[in-house]
Amino acid sequence: MAESLKAEIDLSKYPYINKGLEGIVAFSTKKSFIDGQKGELIFAGYDIETLAENASFEEVCFLLWNDRLPNQEELDDLNHRLQNNRELPEAVLNYIKSTPKSAEPMAVLRTSVSMLSDFHEVSAENDKEFWVNKAISITAKIPTIIAAFDRSRNGKEIVTPLDKKSTAFNFLYMINDEEPGEQAEKTMDLCLILHAEHGMNASTFTSRTICSTESDMYSSVTGAIGALKGPLHGGANQQVMNMLLDIEEKDADPVEYVKGRLSNKQKVMGFGHRVYKTMDPRARILRGMSEKLSKETGHETLYEWSEAILKTMKDEKNIDPNVDFFSATVYYSMGIKPDLYTCIFTMSRVSGWTGHYIEQAENNRLIRPRALYTGEKNLDWVSAENR
Amino acid sequence: MAESLKAEIDLSKYPYINKGLEGIVAFSTKKSFIDGQKGELIFAGYDIETLAENASFEEVCFLLWNDRLPNQEELDDLNHRLQNNRELPEAVLNYIKSTPKSAEPMAVLRTSVSMLSDFHEVSAENDKEFWVNKAISITAKIPTIIAAFDRSRNGKEIVTPLDKKSTAFNFLYMINDEEPGEQAEKTMDLCLILHAEHGMNASTFTSRTICSTESDMYSSVTGAIGALKGPLHGGANQQVMNMLLDIEEKDADPVEYVKGRLSNKQKVMGFGHRVYKTMDPRARILRGMSEKLSKETGHETLYEWSEAILKTMKDEKNIDPNVDFFSATVYYSMGIKPDLYTCIFTMSRVSGWTGHYIEQAENNRLIRPRALYTGEKNLDWVSAENR
Repeated sequence: MAESLKAEIDLSKYPYINKGLEGIVAFSTKKSFIDGQKGELIFAGYDIETLAENASFEEVCFLLWNDRLPNQEELDDLNHRLQNNRELPEAVLNYIKSTPKSAEPMAVLRTSVSMLSDFHEVSAENDKEFWVNKAISITAKIPTIIAAFDRSRNGKEIVTPLDKKSTAFNFLYMINDEEPGEQAEKTMDLCLILHAEHGMNASTFTSRTICSTESDMYSSVTGAIGALKGPLHGGANQQVMNMLLDIEEKDADPVEYVKGRLSNKQKVMGFGHRVYKTMDPRARILRGMSEKLSKETGHETLYEWSEAILKTMKDEKNIDPNVDFFSATVYYSMGIKPDLYTCIFTMSRVSGWTGHYIEQAENNRLIRPRALYTGEKNLDWVSAENR
Repeated sequence: MAESLKAEIDLSKYPYINKGLEGIVAFSTKKSFIDGQKGELIFAGYDIETLAENASFEEVCFLLWNDRLPNQEELDDLNHRLQNNRELPEAVLNYIKSTPKSAEPMAVLRTSVSMLSDFHEVSAENDKEFWVNKAISITAKIPTIIAAFDRSRNGKEIVTPLDKKSTAFNFLYMINDEEPGEQAEKTMDLCLILHAEHGMNASTFTSRTICSTESDMYSSVTGAIGALKGPLHGGANQQVMNMLLDIEEKDADPVEYVKGRLSNKQKVMGFGHRVYKTMDPRARILRGMSEKLSKETGHETLYEWSEAILKTMKDEKNIDPNVDFFSATVYYSMGIKPDLYTCIFTMSRVSGWTGHYIEQAENNRLIRPRALYTGEKNLDWVSAENR
């Protein structure tokens, strides 16, 4: 079918539009595999459960950039390079400090990442090593951008990043100006691992489409941030939290609240997924984490509501929660503001986006689908005053 | 085929990968129609030749946003609103003035457009009027950004935009700090019309993909700029000019030069197109303009070389020139630096991108294709020191 369409066919007579490109296989990849029926997720050979139990986020970055895990020397080297790439150019810091406090954090992140490119040499050199260097530089700076804007908009002094410690530790340190405990660091690290990569979602696909014109990695990541920002993609966990806070504010019963939304045909955020037909394995892992954390931090009620909502959605609609559902309560329990959740998602997913950029660049083909024209043809010109 | 893939099928056994999504129909659209066999291009009902002869760029903007031409009152209103939206927020001007002069113009444009969003109210209001207002605001400001950075990097004072006159007139005025003649304005206006829209190319597709997550128009245009920046897309006319300048510098014979590239299996920029199998109608129009302009401005040699290269490519490879081939010499004859060509392309194409954004938003479906996983599975964890 796709073959026969290529050249001669008159598209106007062709009836099938792959709206949303659902089911269309656009690439081959070694980055991740999802079995939506079994609820299975693999990053470059390793089950997400295996990685959640054993890996650090930095190891997962190496895995997504190289399709294999690093040996100790390579891991030490990567940690070192990430630690030494955290500081922002003065101009980016100035922008973050001076932009309106009302700006959306994801918009500030998009602009800041785009601006980073002005401080990098434009090079004709375009090989794996060059791309990995860019990926390290961008991945290292994103947490600094997020924390700097959050501190700045709250009238607090910006915290200079550490040139030691993990991405998770350093991020929590910069946000709070206080070293995090072991449990907090571990939880944040796990959240970064879980969100690092997930097949051909809209932002990853954007990253590859931009790469396919042979554009640079900054363009690719900037575009992907724009895609992730949308409420139908990365914006969902923020909306889950807003729903829980709305229930709290209205002193509502969570089960009745959700039933009310369903009977009004309103969306309940954090449920259902284009690919998974069973519970998302990341939601399973986060569910356990959410239970533990919410008890430790005195947010037990939120966790109980989550469970009640989950049961209601399963009973009423037979839909399972997705990764956004429990990540909301996990971040909230860690004291992070809801409008930063999508930024944290970005902090993690940039590893997958840049991995896909490298994979696309190494075996490129310009991405250019078709559209079916449904407008008129051959209209005659009438001058403006006679229209 | 697409239907049967949706859920149950094991993708690893599925043999067909639509690499580059060639021939896959992803949308229906009223924005443009291309008949690659006949060399026909239609914008919302009107042949490109009709528009080139009769319309202004501003009329084409209205057409692409509304799928119909404006009456006189609507056109006057649009002109007025574009004229009154040209000035940049102070912060964007500060960024443009202070960023390194070596920065890539397209990167500065990408960052500046992204930054504009910090100065716009985030609104739950999301209807046609809201989107058209954003489209007007962005379209009006892009020429100001390009001219401001070009003046600034050359150590010249930035020219404040006029609150009257056409987009073409105002752009040339801001670039040169001098009012353009009628012929120059008309040529620039025609170039803007020709590049305004062109089916489901990579940048337009990026714009729609980002929109499909319900993300905002700034994200969408920022991503599209990143895609257009690539040499396989909007970057091509700059490379055509660099080729012509290389011929000049080496004092080479253009025919031998091109034959040399072909026999070394190097690409000759400005030829061939995924969709057109005959001469791109825009190239036809630009060819005449290039001939006229190069004679008027004393760049006749460049035009003659272009014709010689065109003939060689047709004889040797039977490939026709695309829109980039003659737009290079047209811009050069107007005294515009090659590294601004893709920015001028952006100035025009933003009308199509935002038109597609509106069309996607009005009838949205999240864009999420699939990828075929070719990596390993179920690998066992080995700790770093034992790898």
